[in-house]
Amino acid sequence: MSLDPAIAARLKRTGDGLVPAIVQQYDTGEVLMLAWMDDEALHRTLTTGRATYWSRSRGSYWVKGDTSGHVQHVRSAALDCDGDTILLKVDQVGAACHTGDRTCFDADELAVNPK
Amino acid sequence: MSLDPAIAARLKRTGDGLVPAIVQQYDTGEVLMLAWMDDEALHRTLTTGRATYWSRSRGSYWVKGDTSGHVQHVRSAALDCDGDTILLKVDQVGAACHTGDRTCFDADELAVNPK
Repeated sequence: MSLDPAIAARLKRTGDGLVPAIVQQYDTGEVLMLAWMDDEALHRTLTTGRATYWSRSRGSYWVKGDTSGHVQHVRSAALDCDGDTILLKVDQVGAACHTGDRTCFDADELAVNPK
Repeated sequence: MSLDPAIAARLKRTGDGLVPAIVQQYDTGEVLMLAWMDDEALHRTLTTGRATYWSRSRGSYWVKGDTSGHVQHVRSAALDCDGDTILLKVDQVGAACHTGDRTCFDADELAVNPK
């Protein structure tokens, strides 16, 4: 089985065949991280309920939490208006970031001036 | 003036010289949209407080709301742990999506099974 053709037809992929996925904690609204999916990663995510990505650096599928235990249980998924971005709402076990931070955006705030 | 070299040195760009920016409503936590920035768009965003993107389809800078009135006032900005994604927290005036929806993720929910 592969990704539902009705979904695949709506996806707009980068030149590498990937779509960015924004990952958000379903109840607090925290944006946890951004990762990348190809059709197969999206198919696995939707059918298993476990967030599964394509690792651009390792060139392989990656079930979030398989090595760290920091699993993402998927509560909902949506495509954006252009079909070029996925929003996953998940229940994150432990830290989302490999640094141990809760989110990947906790450590490097940029100054905005003027606000 | 261009982007602070200390920030530019931390950015990891796609082959096109771009970085994805996740845009979130600062108080409700809604994920509004995803857009793309090059160094100049990020510089303008941080120095003017108005969210400014690079439009891949039009090949030009785009100050969100200049034509629609649906301005994004930037409250904070952060880089992720890898320097390859930006998180903007904004105060969105009106609809974020060009379709008139509040967010770009309101219209196309994907079934997750099992949850």
